Amino acid sequence: MAFSTSSLSFTPSFVKLANPRLLPSIATPTDVAPQVLHVCEINELDRASLAYLRLSQKEVNRLGDLVPFTNRLYTGDLQKRIGITAGISTLIQNKPENNGDRYEVAYSFYFGDYGHISVQGAYLTYEDSYLAVTGGSGSFEGVYGQVKLHQLVCHPLKILYTFYLKGIKDLPEELLGKHVEPSPDVVPTAAAKACEPHATVSNFTD
Amino acid sequence: MAFSTSSLSFTPSFVKLANPRLLPSIATPTDVAPQVLHVCEINELDRASLAYLRLSQKEVNRLGDLVPFTNRLYTGDLQKRIGITAGISTLIQNKPENNGDRYEVAYSFYFGDYGHISVQGAYLTYEDSYLAVTGGSGSFEGVYGQVKLHQLVCHPLKILYTFYLKGIKDLPEELLGKHVEPSPDVVPTAAAKACEPHATVSNFTD
Amino acid sequence: MAFSTSSLSFTPSFVKLANPRLLPSIATPTDVAPQVLHVCEINELDRASLAYLRLSQKEVNRLGDLVPFTNRLYTGDLQKRIGITAGISTLIQNKPENNGDRYEVAYSFYFGDYGHISVQGAYLTYEDSYLAVTGGSGSFEGVYGQVKLHQLVCHPLKILYTFYLKGIKDLPEELLGKHVEPSPDVVPTAAAKACEPHATVSNFTD
Repeated sequence: MAFSTSSLSFTPSFVKLANPRLLPSIATPTDVAPQVLHVCEINELDRASLAYLRLSQKEVNRLGDLVPFTNRLYTGDLQKRIGITAGISTLIQNKPENNGDRYEVAYSFYFGDYGHISVQGAYLTYEDSYLAVTGGSGSFEGVYGQVKLHQLVCHPLKILYTFYLKGIKDLPEELLGKHVEPSPDVVPTAAAKACEPHATVSNFTD
Repeated sequence: MAFSTSSLSFTPSFVKLANPRLLPSIATPTDVAPQVLHVCEINELDRASLAYLRLSQKEVNRLGDLVPFTNRLYTGDLQKRIGITAGISTLIQNKPENNGDRYEVAYSFYFGDYGHISVQGAYLTYEDSYLAVTGGSGSFEGVYGQVKLHQLVCHPLKILYTFYLKGIKDLPEELLGKHVEPSPDVVPTAAAKACEPHATVSNFTD
Repeated sequence: MAFSTSSLSFTPSFVKLANPRLLPSIATPTDVAPQVLHVCEINELDRASLAYLRLSQKEVNRLGDLVPFTNRLYTGDLQKRIGITAGISTLIQNKPENNGDRYEVAYSFYFGDYGHISVQGAYLTYEDSYLAVTGGSGSFEGVYGQVKLHQLVCHPLKILYTFYLKGIKDLPEELLGKHVEPSPDVVPTAAAKACEPHATVSNFTD
C-alpha cells in the first residue's frame, strides 16, 4: 500500500521536528551538549607582557588605558604546552569597592596545529566571568559557545578557563585531561614548561 | 501493513528535509526567524566616557585615534535599566562630505544576570549601520545574527539598537517591550534612571 | 490504512536524523560544505593607512604597539572594487628568526550593499594564517567559518584572502570569479581602480 499524505494525520514526533514551519526548533543549537575544554593561561614573564598603556594619563586605572598582552597556554592538567594567548584589554572601569578593574577584552587562544579560538567579553579582576566564543580556525572552524574565566593569580597572571564548545567535531584526547585543582600555586610540569616534545601539542604556538 | 522502503517513493516534504544529502539546507540557519530585541544606549556622563585618544596627533579626527567607551543600557521602552555597553572604537575615516566619521567597533552589551552579547562592525556617526553579533554568554550563549544601530544623538550619545537574534531560546518577557518613538529627546523613566529595584533587570550590570 | 506507530519499527535513516536524541549530529555544522570566496586587499596609499602607533616607545616593533588600518577591497579576480577593510592590529611579538611580526587582529570586510564580514585571529607578516569569521551583516548575516590570509606584498600591503563561509545563502555570481595568480605584481583593472560603475559592486564601500 502506498504511503499517502493522508497517513500523515498521525504526525509522529519526528515529523513535527522535520516540519519546515518548525525548523527553528531544529536549527536552534541550544539543545546541543557542549564539549568541555580546560586550559590554563600563565604569564611566566618570558614574553614581555603585559604592556599597560596608561593613555588616560591618570594615576588610577581608568577608561582610556589599553593593555595588549600575550601569555603561555597549557592544557588544564598542566601536562602539555599548547601555545599562547594574544590580544588586547580595554580598561572600562576601576572598581574600588571590588578592589579591582573591569576590562573589555578581545583575544585568541592558539593551539599549534589544532588552530585557534577567538573570544570577546568581560574580564573582571575580582570575580569570574563568561566570555563569548566568537569563532575559530582549524579544528575549531565554526566553533561557538562560551568560556568561563576563573582567575587564580592576578600578577603575574594565572587563569583557568573552562570552554563550553559547540559546532565542532570531537576534541582530541590530549586536550581533554582533567584540570588541576584551582589554586594560586599551580605550575606546569617541568617538561611542559621546557616545551619538551612529549609535553607539547604538535607545533605548539610560541 | 508494514512501512516499507518502497513506500518512500512518494517522498513527502519532511523526508527531503531530513535527507542527509540535503543536510546543508537544514543546517543553514538563514531560514530561521530572528527574535527582535530593542535596547537603548545612553551616555549620561556618569561613567567618565568616552575617552577620545587622539593618537594621530592631528586636529581633525583621523586613522590612529582610538575611542574606548562605556555607556548605560536600557530596555527599548526605557522602562528598565539593563546594564552597560563597553568596548573600543577605532577611527577609520573622517567624512567631511557626511559631516561625520566612520568607526570600526568591537564591544559588548551587558544584561545583568542574563549575560552579554558581543558585536563587531561599523559605526557611522552620520547614518544607520548593521553590526555583526559575534556571540554571547548566559541566556545569549550561542547567539548569532545582526543588529541595527540607529543614532538618536551624537553627543552625548543616544543610540537605539534593534537586534535580530538567532540560536537562542525565547527571550524573557521583560526585555521584549516596544521601543520608544525614536527621537533625540527620549529619556529613561525616573525609576529606571535611579535604578530602582522594580525598574532594573536582575543584578543589572553597572 | 493508517500510518501507525508500530510501523516505525523499521526506522529509515531520516527518522534517525530527526530523532531528538540525535539532534546534535544534525545541528553540528561541521558537515556543511563551505562556500569559497576570494577577495584581494590592497593598500593604494590613498586612505592615510596604516597608522603605526609606537606606544611601546621602542625602536623594534614590540607588544604595546597598535596599528589601525583601512585598505581597498577588490574581488579575487581584481575586476571589481568591492569596498574596504577596517580595523586594528595589535603587535604581539617581533620574530627576528622569521624576519617579521605576529599581530592579533580584529577587523571587517565591507562589501557595499552586500553588507560586511568580521574576523578575528592572527596575522603573521612572514607566513599564511587562518582567521575566524566571527559574523556578518546583510547578505552575510549569520555567517561563520574561517578565512585564509595569504600575503603577496608586505609594504604597501597586498593580501589575497580565501574565505570558507557557512550559514549563508548562495553568494552572488559577481563575487565568485576565480582569483588572480598570486604574485606581488597583481593590480586591479584600471576600471576597478577608477571605481567605474560597471567595475564596482552596488554602492561599494569607500
